[in-house]
Amino acid sequence: QRGIWHHASYITLKWVFALLIGILTGLAAFFINIAVENFSGWKFAATFAVMKHSYFLGLITYVAFNGALVFSSVYIITQFAPAAAGSGIPEIKAYLNGIDTPGILLFRTLIGKILGSIGSVGGGLALGKEGPLVHTGACIASVLGQGGSTKYNVNPKWLRRFKNDRDRRDLVTCGCAAGVAAAFRSPVGGVLFALEEVTSWWRSQLLWRVFFTSAVVAVVVRTAMGWCKTGSCGHFSSGGFIIWDISGGQDDYSFFELLPMAMLGAIGGLLGALFNQLTIWISTWRRNVVHRKGNRVKIIEVLLVSLITSLLSFGLPMMTSCKPCPDPAKYPDVVCPRPSHSYGNYVNFFCSNENEYNDLATIFFNTQDDAIRNLFSTNTPHEYTTRSLLTFLVMFFSLAVLTYGTAVPSGQFVPGIMIGATYGRLVGILVVNASSKDSVDEGTYALLGAASFLGGSMRMTVSLCVIMVEITNNLQLLPLIMLVLLISKAVGDAFNNGFYEEQVKLRSLPLLDSRPQRFMRTLAAKDAISTRKVVQFSRVSKIGHIVSVLRSTNHNGYPVVDKLPTGEPVVIGLILRSHLLALLQAKADFQHTSIPGDIPGQIKFRYDVRDFTKPVSSKGVSIYEINISPQEMEMFIDLQPFVNPTPYIVPEDMSLTKVYNLFRQLGLRHICVVPRPSQVVGVITRKDLLPEVLEERDSLEEIMSSRGRY
Amino acid sequence: QRGIWHHASYITLKWVFALLIGILTGLAAFFINIAVENFSGWKFAATFAVMKHSYFLGLITYVAFNGALVFSSVYIITQFAPAAAGSGIPEIKAYLNGIDTPGILLFRTLIGKILGSIGSVGGGLALGKEGPLVHTGACIASVLGQGGSTKYNVNPKWLRRFKNDRDRRDLVTCGCAAGVAAAFRSPVGGVLFALEEVTSWWRSQLLWRVFFTSAVVAVVVRTAMGWCKTGSCGHFSSGGFIIWDISGGQDDYSFFELLPMAMLGAIGGLLGALFNQLTIWISTWRRNVVHRKGNRVKIIEVLLVSLITSLLSFGLPMMTSCKPCPDPAKYPDVVCPRPSHSYGNYVNFFCSNENEYNDLATIFFNTQDDAIRNLFSTNTPHEYTTRSLLTFLVMFFSLAVLTYGTAVPSGQFVPGIMIGATYGRLVGILVVNASSKDSVDEGTYALLGAASFLGGSMRMTVSLCVIMVEITNNLQLLPLIMLVLLISKAVGDAFNNGFYEEQVKLRSLPLLDSRPQRFMRTLAAKDAISTRKVVQFSRVSKIGHIVSVLRSTNHNGYPVVDKLPTGEPVVIGLILRSHLLALLQAKADFQHTSIPGDIPGQIKFRYDVRDFTKPVSSKGVSIYEINISPQEMEMFIDLQPFVNPTPYIVPEDMSLTKVYNLFRQLGLRHICVVPRPSQVVGVITRKDLLPEVLEERDSLEEIMSSRGRY
Repeated sequence: QRGIWHHASYITLKWVFALLIGILTGLAAFFINIAVENFSGWKFAATFAVMKHSYFLGLITYVAFNGALVFSSVYIITQFAPAAAGSGIPEIKAYLNGIDTPGILLFRTLIGKILGSIGSVGGGLALGKEGPLVHTGACIASVLGQGGSTKYNVNPKWLRRFKNDRDRRDLVTCGCAAGVAAAFRSPVGGVLFALEEVTSWWRSQLLWRVFFTSAVVAVVVRTAMGWCKTGSCGHFSSGGFIIWDISGGQDDYSFFELLPMAMLGAIGGLLGALFNQLTIWISTWRRNVVHRKGNRVKIIEVLLVSLITSLLSFGLPMMTSCKPCPDPAKYPDVVCPRPSHSYGNYVNFFCSNENEYNDLATIFFNTQDDAIRNLFSTNTPHEYTTRSLLTFLVMFFSLAVLTYGTAVPSGQFVPGIMIGATYGRLVGILVVNASSKDSVDEGTYALLGAASFLGGSMRMTVSLCVIMVEITNNLQLLPLIMLVLLISKAVGDAFNNGFYEEQVKLRSLPLLDSRPQRFMRTLAAKDAISTRKVVQFSRVSKIGHIVSVLRSTNHNGYPVVDKLPTGEPVVIGLILRSHLLALLQAKADFQHTSIPGDIPGQIKFRYDVRDFTKPVSSKGVSIYEINISPQEMEMFIDLQPFVNPTPYIVPEDMSLTKVYNLFRQLGLRHICVVPRPSQVVGVITRKDLLPEVLEERDSLEEIMSSRGRY
Repeated sequence: QRGIWHHASYITLKWVFALLIGILTGLAAFFINIAVENFSGWKFAATFAVMKHSYFLGLITYVAFNGALVFSSVYIITQFAPAAAGSGIPEIKAYLNGIDTPGILLFRTLIGKILGSIGSVGGGLALGKEGPLVHTGACIASVLGQGGSTKYNVNPKWLRRFKNDRDRRDLVTCGCAAGVAAAFRSPVGGVLFALEEVTSWWRSQLLWRVFFTSAVVAVVVRTAMGWCKTGSCGHFSSGGFIIWDISGGQDDYSFFELLPMAMLGAIGGLLGALFNQLTIWISTWRRNVVHRKGNRVKIIEVLLVSLITSLLSFGLPMMTSCKPCPDPAKYPDVVCPRPSHSYGNYVNFFCSNENEYNDLATIFFNTQDDAIRNLFSTNTPHEYTTRSLLTFLVMFFSLAVLTYGTAVPSGQFVPGIMIGATYGRLVGILVVNASSKDSVDEGTYALLGAASFLGGSMRMTVSLCVIMVEITNNLQLLPLIMLVLLISKAVGDAFNNGFYEEQVKLRSLPLLDSRPQRFMRTLAAKDAISTRKVVQFSRVSKIGHIVSVLRSTNHNGYPVVDKLPTGEPVVIGLILRSHLLALLQAKADFQHTSIPGDIPGQIKFRYDVRDFTKPVSSKGVSIYEINISPQEMEMFIDLQPFVNPTPYIVPEDMSLTKVYNLFRQLGLRHICVVPRPSQVVGVITRKDLLPEVLEERDSLEEIMSSRGRY
């Protein structure tokens, strides 16, 4: 009966965790947004106020504000949480594929990510807060699942059950979905993002839980924003969370428009691939040259980037001549120029005339969320000149490339949307000029452009599609977005891999692709095993021998062999390096004779499971840290109770493609390669595995009772 | 070089097939919709025309029209395409899990499904055309991938490459997505439906292709509907395809409304589970009692159901008293009563006064698409009386249960939406009465009710959510839909499995669940193999022996053993029953001596691959159909060239849970259970499988050149 209670509490806990992940991620996103919006609001308010007296002092204020915010970010990252730099999505992707990057899921990384994002996004750098939010969600999930903390002595027993790889990965998957759901207010997009882009193994049971987490996030975020409507959140208005409502856009398209739209897809693929390539080069250069020189150089680098960004976003609009406001008779809805303390289009910046606006400042001298809203804005034809858009495109693209990889948290979604929306709007201007119809809308092209650039860079399909639809709140464009994404992904794929995959590669994280390479078809399992001789232990081994093997090899798993009464050898299982280390450290099972301890199955297991679990983010104990006396070196240990008795096995001449699929689909860490069997005991088919069939076997009851509970 | 061309043409062909599936499914959906709308249009036009003279003659016209349409459907199904009856989704689900139901993917099933749907839906039965459209899409995909037809002698060689299980399953998955995308005009919903509900194995490469197919469907359907706007499609108006635009619904909710919404979820779970249970009982009864008696009984049964449906949908509104039209001053947009030849609310049916309408007739005496549109209609408070809705709910629920399982194509989506929308609107009326706010809208509750019933019956989550959003064209309700679905699925799961799973079980299709049962943890691989002794062949076997073994056993795979030069036995592989049958039929490799034919690897393979492929929808040849002379019985055959040399193997004491996961995750048909190995040749880890590492091995070049191309 205890089994059922145990199981029920485990299930309950899983769902409670999903709920908590949703709530906490929603709150974290809300906090980041409120902070960013308020810092930006103060910054722009102060700058505009000072500018009334002197433009130069305005520039100084702007640069100083940005510099201070960015410095706070880079200081936190370099000093406290180095793992919080960058996007975090490549590392999470690698983690879910089975590769631990040290420190990536720690509590301090979480705090660093949240505070760092506020500084870097508030400081106006060409990066977004969406990637970091995914990482934040993953950290929250992992910290929850860690089962308390040894450091702070919070270590309740019932929490330890989640200290295994599978449960923790499930939680992190939920966390990723929650992050996307919170970042874009896109719950379905979050689920799909987790499914398409992040996880390596997906079980359908998980879908349901991830879905729940996303729904919780949606409710939390909405409630929090409802609370803000009372005006208690300062500068945080509806603009805070990404929703660029373009429901006013064009709801139909002519056949000829498919051509410029397809063109957008092609441009997106080309520019996206270029972006990926440039970020690879600059990241390599940074890693090999700049970041070797320590934290001080990292800080100076970020501050330099911030200075350049500030100067460009202030200076370039200054050099642009203002345009007269549109005719109020023709566009009665347009407020031009916009009042000083509100958000919107048509900012009056450095204009000689009261009735003019500066189109470049509208997008460049602004928060990125507002800039995108302005680029997507509908029913505002000819708001931007081709020249301003081109200037912005080139400058912002360069800034985005330059900024990526510096030591601050940085997401690529928002910069991608900015770049794409800009050339989208450019193409839109061309189409408006070429077409005589009124129905063509520049804002719609800006949206398609944004989709195309993201598609060309990140190469996501379904999830990106849903995210784009959810953030623009416009379903009618769905088929067009699909079309654009198809083309941009296909074009981009011709040049390189997706952004995250390239970044994973760059960090030399050994990500296993879901599909085996074609050349593996000509190889067999035995070709993949290292040429080094396989190192194995006898069932009862001398401590000294184990220590010397662990010192001289770096294998992670060792087969254990025994002899049958007939004298024939038999493999009794595989023992992991980490378990051997735990045994050597505990010393509880050392014995003086080489005779096996007890009857198998009856042996007392003296360990707590957590002695054998891997720590979240450290390398674990090393063999050189364990002290063993010379007397102990002469003792023995019976490894039988500690082996994995039935690792997955493959015959040595099995095609490597099959081996790869087995390894990858089941998420294994070791496969034992064995000689061809001499005998088949039986063949298991679909029918043999049906629960009805198994339950009907007479022998079942007997088998189960004779074995007892495992 | 041929390899690359071969590969490129294969990839191209895959995409061409995806394109064709999209186009053809879109056109099929369009054709079905046009036909249904026109038949229904004629029916109602004729009935209304006759009713002007006599209500009794109107009833006769209505019953006759319905009877004729339903008869055409059941006649086609029973006489030509029995496999086209029902929804088809359970069978497709089983097919993608690895179980072939005879006839389910044939060309004649496709035709039967299309024509049968038109009759059954046009004839006003309580069923939908959406499930059948999924089946239609799957059939189109399978017929395309079949590689021509042996019967009609269209059998080009380049098409045969898709004659393998994996490629055909991929195509069918695309077809399912296309079907949903076409049925609901919901491309993203289609992709997710295929992913969540239908497939058993999902590869991320497939996602991309499925996405493409869905996009194609969206474009085709839109183009076709654009063509209809010119008025050349008769009664087919915008009403044809499911899009119940409720963008006018409530865009916000008060906190207190979460309670009635949660209640909707609970009701949906209860009624959904009840629906599943009732359909199980009635299907079992049908199968055991009614349908045994042959086709004539099936036809009579369907005609009886049609008669009952017609009488109820005509008679019940007649017995309802009419209501006066709403005050035009208060609701200026309402057209009441609606003009005779248009679609919409407020139908004047059997009313004594010109200025009245019949609320029950508005939903019951109507096509289902229009009825749903009327139930979802916003800003029409108090259109329906509680009594009419209750009457309709009870009657339609019973009709839906009664109709499911009759010998016509039938989908459960639309009936589910009808039932859910009705009680949703009922709850909505309660909330409107209880609340003082104007913002509460009955139509929104109807939509949530529809989501809850589908969730409670089908237990889908993400895909259903996206489909609901796509068909109502309203994103703002997404979090509420998620909430309702979460509750209704959880409540429903407490009682039984999802609708499709129950139907699969009912048909005794041995579907393997994605998760092993808990009791399997206590079993080992050897407990699952049948108690019968394993039957194996020697490398060179006597024909007579093979024949007698094939006759006396019904295994699908037989291990083949050989002797090493040392005399030790060694398993050289597994041979399939179907391959043995092909060899016995061809007789090309019979030999007179028991000496192995050639040096292994050098043997000439005299067969075309297609000789060994399984036919799509038949049982294949039986051992009793092969004639072998007594002389031939004495001959031998060397099985070595025909075995699968490296089937997946597991040691006999591996936990059955692990075996199950291996089997299920890799989609296997056979696993060989072997004794514990006596030796481990090596251990393969993640690093060994990285392409970079493998490519760097010095030996690789050598190995590959020495082996030649496989």
